[in-house]
Amino acid sequence: MIKALDFPTDAQATLTVNLKAIVDNYKRCRALAGGTDCAAMVKADAYGMGIEQVAPVLYHKAGCRIFFVANLTEAITLRSFVPESTIYVLNGFFPGHGEYFTRHNIRPVLNDLDQIRLWAEMTPEARPPCAVHFDTGINRLGLTPAETDLFIKDIALRSQLDIALVMSHLACSDDRLNPLNARQLADFTAITRHFPDIPASLANSGGILLGPDYHFDLVRPGLLMFGGNPGKHTIPERIRPAFRITGKILQIRQLETGQSVGYGSTWTADRPCHIATINIGYADGYLQVFNNCGQAFAKGTLLPIVGRVSMDMIAVDVTDIEIGTGSDVELLGEHITLEMASEVSTLSQYEILTGVRERYQRIYK
Amino acid sequence: MIKALDFPTDAQATLTVNLKAIVDNYKRCRALAGGTDCAAMVKADAYGMGIEQVAPVLYHKAGCRIFFVANLTEAITLRSFVPESTIYVLNGFFPGHGEYFTRHNIRPVLNDLDQIRLWAEMTPEARPPCAVHFDTGINRLGLTPAETDLFIKDIALRSQLDIALVMSHLACSDDRLNPLNARQLADFTAITRHFPDIPASLANSGGILLGPDYHFDLVRPGLLMFGGNPGKHTIPERIRPAFRITGKILQIRQLETGQSVGYGSTWTADRPCHIATINIGYADGYLQVFNNCGQAFAKGTLLPIVGRVSMDMIAVDVTDIEIGTGSDVELLGEHITLEMASEVSTLSQYEILTGVRERYQRIYK
Repeated sequence: MIKALDFPTDAQATLTVNLKAIVDNYKRCRALAGGTDCAAMVKADAYGMGIEQVAPVLYHKAGCRIFFVANLTEAITLRSFVPESTIYVLNGFFPGHGEYFTRHNIRPVLNDLDQIRLWAEMTPEARPPCAVHFDTGINRLGLTPAETDLFIKDIALRSQLDIALVMSHLACSDDRLNPLNARQLADFTAITRHFPDIPASLANSGGILLGPDYHFDLVRPGLLMFGGNPGKHTIPERIRPAFRITGKILQIRQLETGQSVGYGSTWTADRPCHIATINIGYADGYLQVFNNCGQAFAKGTLLPIVGRVSMDMIAVDVTDIEIGTGSDVELLGEHITLEMASEVSTLSQYEILTGVRERYQRIYK
Repeated sequence: MIKALDFPTDAQATLTVNLKAIVDNYKRCRALAGGTDCAAMVKADAYGMGIEQVAPVLYHKAGCRIFFVANLTEAITLRSFVPESTIYVLNGFFPGHGEYFTRHNIRPVLNDLDQIRLWAEMTPEARPPCAVHFDTGINRLGLTPAETDLFIKDIALRSQLDIALVMSHLACSDDRLNPLNARQLADFTAITRHFPDIPASLANSGGILLGPDYHFDLVRPGLLMFGGNPGKHTIPERIRPAFRITGKILQIRQLETGQSVGYGSTWTADRPCHIATINIGYADGYLQVFNNCGQAFAKGTLLPIVGRVSMDMIAVDVTDIEIGTGSDVELLGEHITLEMASEVSTLSQYEILTGVRERYQRIYK
């Protein structure tokens, strides 16, 4: 077993996660949703930020009591970090998984009538409460309109279940002008009338920003908690970046006019310049969509990424600043926001965030 | 501590790594390089395939004795898996890192005169042998031509070092027609004449395929070992895919003509169809560049990805095959090769390979 002390602290690039910012952003989401309850989306290792660190601070410092993950494996992992919380599995319920839901007190989000019937077959004592997901237009998971009608009429089946939440998911909440939002809202509202005593949930981060009609009893922010902006909204005040990625300068080279940089020689110096090689590459999630268009930040200055992104390195033009080998350069964070990085690349903010890889030295503060 | 037995084996998508194929591909690279020695590039967690599993089989089953990684942290990790091997760190040598190189018997690739002098200042007994990297045109890391001249003439400095390898790196080996290849070859050949008794290395995977002139004393394959094709080459016979990614069908929906799928409603059914939702998304490294253009494979049939890739899910049109919930669908592997996936997306094969994420259940065989 290798111990942390066996490693130098400055041989890798660094991911700094600001847990305080995540807590503050979560509280801000809750405030934006008025008096509504607020869950936290922590699937995909808390969007790449580390579920082991993120979930406990949301529980202890922000009062979050409800967590959503994608699959049962994520849920069982999460259970050890937040023993007292409510955990929902979005992917649903499948044959052979009952004992895991029971043992770890995890709730499935039931996505079709087969899953509902399978869940109903378990002995009631072994069954935690469940959520039922009605599809209102994303056509991905959830009961279809036809199944929804059948389920609403099937009083016998419904009476067997302990439904703790009815939910649906917005397909276009990134765009407040999309007419599908209002259609999904109307359809979901109609469904909830058949479940008058059961809490209802529709809004992800984008849905929170669509306004109070969309909030129902529980909102489910993800990207907003981490400081990203879900689509074409104005990002709310006091939502701030929750992480920072910095690379180290491995070497600085003086190039003459006409010399090229990197694989494929895709960038050529049009003046004598200083090019810094930084220890971050596409294996760290900084993809080649940033070739010759990405930005770095150091000494108060935005700096261009030049040439092609390598597996473990990028080149940055530092001609206009005074900086030396070993210095840190920001690739994402307060100065290069997810919005900025998304704008210059073809990646969504979600992809950039969840694309943060494991090779970084991680610092939580 | 959570034990593996606490988790179901089928709640996640699966990455199957074929260690036998990696061993065979490595041996094939060695054969392609004639009698030349052959190292293995295992940076970035063995290109995402798992250094803990990949490095020992290369050592024990393929006879590989030399490994390259990007940084010192990767090297120290690797040391515990291949205790007797030679390990080089490509990023170089930095202040304060000497004791780590000594303690773990790791060799730096020295990239500039500052690093060379810093290394020379260590007591000789504490210094493992080193490599020296001469830049011949990629302008990323390595001694510049000016530094190279100085170093060649500095007999006193050279005599202090135990140089075990002189190396350079090709910028355009993906394209055999690029004239930079021959220029780099000529420049590197000239440099090696000043180090007649020291092994020399120039070729990465692409360089191996450029022919014997490029092989020198040691080749350094990466992508080829994992079954990818480094650029515009004809992939050599008997190089085969070394991994497979399969997702599970969470749900199958019947859609009517005119219904749309996924976020942003970017795909609309032009016939009644069956759409399967699969448990792989961009948080697993399957990015939105595959929206409406990626391919899956099941029941002997290529199947189109429809709509936008979600964080944890994709939708696949399965209308033309008979398949049920819980079935496996290949996203990458023998039928959807890295070359095919690279062609439909804007990603390089390297990015797709190293983009494979940690949420998969991993099976090594």
